[in-house]
Amino acid sequence: MSETFARLAEVLEARKGAEPDSSYVASLYHKGLNKILEKVGEESVETILAAKDAATSGDAHELIYETADLWFHSLVMLAALGQHPQAVLDELDRRFGLSGHAEKAARPHN
Amino acid sequence: MSETFARLAEVLEARKGAEPDSSYVASLYHKGLNKILEKVGEESVETILAAKDAATSGDAHELIYETADLWFHSLVMLAALGQHPQAVLDELDRRFGLSGHAEKAARPHN
Amino acid sequence: MSETFARLAEVLEARKGAEPDSSYVASLYHKGLNKILEKVGEESVETILAAKDAATSGDAHELIYETADLWFHSLVMLAALGQHPQAVLDELDRRFGLSGHAEKAARPHN
Amino acid sequence: MSETFARLAEVLEARKGAEPDSSYVASLYHKGLNKILEKVGEESVETILAAKDAATSGDAHELIYETADLWFHSLVMLAALGQHPQAVLDELDRRFGLSGHAEKAARPHN
Repeated sequence: MSETFARLAEVLEARKGAEPDSSYVASLYHKGLNKILEKVGEESVETILAAKDAATSGDAHELIYETADLWFHSLVMLAALGQHPQAVLDELDRRFGLSGHAEKAARPHN
Repeated sequence: MSETFARLAEVLEARKGAEPDSSYVASLYHKGLNKILEKVGEESVETILAAKDAATSGDAHELIYETADLWFHSLVMLAALGQHPQAVLDELDRRFGLSGHAEKAARPHN
Repeated sequence: MSETFARLAEVLEARKGAEPDSSYVASLYHKGLNKILEKVGEESVETILAAKDAATSGDAHELIYETADLWFHSLVMLAALGQHPQAVLDELDRRFGLSGHAEKAARPHN
Repeated sequence: MSETFARLAEVLEARKGAEPDSSYVASLYHKGLNKILEKVGEESVETILAAKDAATSGDAHELIYETADLWFHSLVMLAALGQHPQAVLDELDRRFGLSGHAEKAARPHN
C-alpha cells in the first residue's frame, strides 16, 4: 500500500494515548469525533476553493496543500474510529480490478 | 507510492480523451470542474454522516465505502487539473519526515 | 417573521403525512434524515461554487438560485426534526438586538 | 420580508466601510470571499453534525444555534457579492406560489 498512508496510520495510532497538548493530533482526538469531522468538512471546502482558484490562476500549489490536509484529516477520522486506510485502498482496488469497465463501479450507490 | 493511487491516476489519465458516455469518469470530465467539485463536496458530507453512524452502530462498512468515494473523486479532481496524487503524498511525506514534532506540521495554516 | 419562511414551514408541515411519491418533500422525508442532510451539504457546496463564479462573472443569478436551494433544504431539515424556523430567527434577533457591537455575537463559539 | 433578514442586511451593508478590526463582519470582509465561503462551508458541516446529534439526543438547542450561524454567514456572503436576501426570498416565493404542486419546483435543477 501507500508507504505514506501506512506510516501516517502508524503515527496516528501511536498518538492515541498521548496527552491532549502533546501534539495537534492528540488534541484532535481529545476534542472528539465531531471536531475531527468538522476538520474533514473544512478541508474539503478549502480544497474545493483551491481547485477553483487553480483553474483560474494555473497555480496548483494551494490545491496540493489543501488536498494533503483533506487526506490527512480523513486518516485521523479513520484512526479515531479504529479503521485502517488499507481497508479503503482495498475497496478502491476491488472496484478497479474489475475489468475494463472498472471505473463504473466507482459510481456512488445513491 | 500507493500502488492503488498510482494505478488510479493512470486510469484517470487514460480516460481523458474518451467519449462522455463511455464511462463514469469520462462523463464527469465532460460535465466540467464544477460537477467534479460538487462530487467531492457530496462525498465528504456522506463520509461525515457515515462516520457519525459508524460511531453509533459500530459498523464501519459504509464509512469505508464513502471514504473510498471521497478519495476517488479527489483523484478525479487532481487529474482534471493536471495534477498527480504523488505531489500530495510528497507534501504529506515532507510534513511527516520532519522529526518527532512532525505531525504539528499537518496543522492547517489558517 | 419572514412571510416566506412562515409559509414554507406550513407547507413542509402539511407534507409530513403525504405519500412518498406525492411530492419532492414527501420523498425526502421518506428517505430519512441522512438524505435530507446530504441535500443540505450538496446545496452548500453548490452555493459556494456559484459564489466563486458570481465573483468572476458578475452574474449572480445562479448564486440566488443555489442560496434558495440551501435555505429551502435547511427548512426541510428543521421540519424533519420538529423545529420551526422562527426559533432560528429568534436566535439571530437575540444576537443582533444586543447594542452596536451586536454582530460580534454572531461569531461561532468554537 | 423577514424583519430579521432585512435588519441583518442593513447591518451587513453598514459594516462595509468599517475598519477590519472594528467588528467580526468587518474582519470577514477584509479577509475576502474565500474566507467567507469557508465559513459557509464550516457552518453547514456544523449544522449537519448538530442535526445528527439532535436526532439522537432530542435536544435541538445546538441545531438552532448552528443553523443561525449558517444563515448568518450566507447573508454575509450575499452582502459581500452585492446581493440582497430579498432576491433569494423572491425566488422561494416564486417557486411556492405555483399552485398545490409548488414544492416540486424546489427540486434542484441538476
